[in-house]
Amino acid sequence: MAGLGKKVLIVYAHQEPKSFNGSLKDVAVAELGRQGCSITVSDLYAMDFEPRATRNDITGTLSNPETFSYGVEVYEAYKKAALSSDIVQEQKKVQEADLVIFQFPLYWFSVPAILKGWMDRVLCQGFAFDLPGFYDDGFLKGKSAILSLTTGGTAEMYSKTGVSGDFRYFLWPLQHGALHFCGFKVLAPQISFAPEFASEEERRGMVASWAERLKTIWKEEPIDCRPPWYFGQ
Amino acid sequence: MAGLGKKVLIVYAHQEPKSFNGSLKDVAVAELGRQGCSITVSDLYAMDFEPRATRNDITGTLSNPETFSYGVEVYEAYKKAALSSDIVQEQKKVQEADLVIFQFPLYWFSVPAILKGWMDRVLCQGFAFDLPGFYDDGFLKGKSAILSLTTGGTAEMYSKTGVSGDFRYFLWPLQHGALHFCGFKVLAPQISFAPEFASEEERRGMVASWAERLKTIWKEEPIDCRPPWYFGQ
Repeated sequence: MAGLGKKVLIVYAHQEPKSFNGSLKDVAVAELGRQGCSITVSDLYAMDFEPRATRNDITGTLSNPETFSYGVEVYEAYKKAALSSDIVQEQKKVQEADLVIFQFPLYWFSVPAILKGWMDRVLCQGFAFDLPGFYDDGFLKGKSAILSLTTGGTAEMYSKTGVSGDFRYFLWPLQHGALHFCGFKVLAPQISFAPEFASEEERRGMVASWAERLKTIWKEEPIDCRPPWYFGQ
Repeated sequence: MAGLGKKVLIVYAHQEPKSFNGSLKDVAVAELGRQGCSITVSDLYAMDFEPRATRNDITGTLSNPETFSYGVEVYEAYKKAALSSDIVQEQKKVQEADLVIFQFPLYWFSVPAILKGWMDRVLCQGFAFDLPGFYDDGFLKGKSAILSLTTGGTAEMYSKTGVSGDFRYFLWPLQHGALHFCGFKVLAPQISFAPEFASEEERRGMVASWAERLKTIWKEEPIDCRPPWYFGQ
């Protein structure tokens, strides 16, 4: 029971339960459950999660109703416990989690908008970071995070000499700019390349290797989010 | 009348008309109007633009209702003219434009979710690209695009030795992965660093320099989206 007492949040962004992303989410739930983890899934499309960052995220009055600043108002609302309930619920899930897994298909070298909205709205100032209080001092330090994603393009396309460049470059804004900024220890990404072009056997292999990796996930060390350019490679 | 006959689409993602982003949008409308351009603004928050990529984006029946694949269904719907009207309207604006300006505050090293949703939904296969038919062969070739964005962090933070790394790295997914993929000629980004921490005079200076740049925008050559690592810097 490697995961006994551990809490995992899976933030899942796919429209179709029977999709390959759905299989990756399901196998994670099964394997982590077998380990004795407590698992929560935020199924963003099923929840019809709101991606837009608007005035509706603040209940009650604004500190400056004349000129609306989302960042300022949400920071104040967090401190006054006046954020909308959908944000508060997600923040509670994050707060309780030891590990957060983001499961999504890559859309435009990034997360789908519904998941971007989760990041924009849930990881607000005061809750996930402050100024100062970011990167290694981010408020979610002590928690780990993994991006588990599928791509349209092949692994070759996402190599240094491929048309889309080394995959670590598109990971930078997500892993460093968002997760590391909030203090998360970023574990290695789980990238399932081009499942649409894979055989059924290859797809099963990708799902199985994710399950296999999760068996020893609690022993993993964080990666250095900085891509090769930092090291002159 | 440097811009006579030219069409410009400004995709604008800020909640507050009186914001600094609003000023940058307004000054672009004014300067390009003075040049004789025809300007359309998609004010995403005012439109309550839908960011979520769902089954609602396809009118009529699905090609595979058993297992929903957003990419497959939207591609088919594009070919059958069965996309939802909000997507069709935005695609028309893009189709007519010579230049698309994206005006937004940087959220998590990327665009706000509402603008990510515009990219996810509007720039669909069949309309913006096909396989093959991407990067230099993307269907929006001949059009130019500019990211005009504001940051929370200072220019120093977004330098090679700064905590957030060279700003060109966070631009990569947007400029190469999305815009260049669709064939856009990417013009230099317009980055207004940390307006919240600037004096009123400095803010006016940033707005003025954007207006000044737009005076000669039709003479600009595209940049190479590839950041320094490609060149061993």
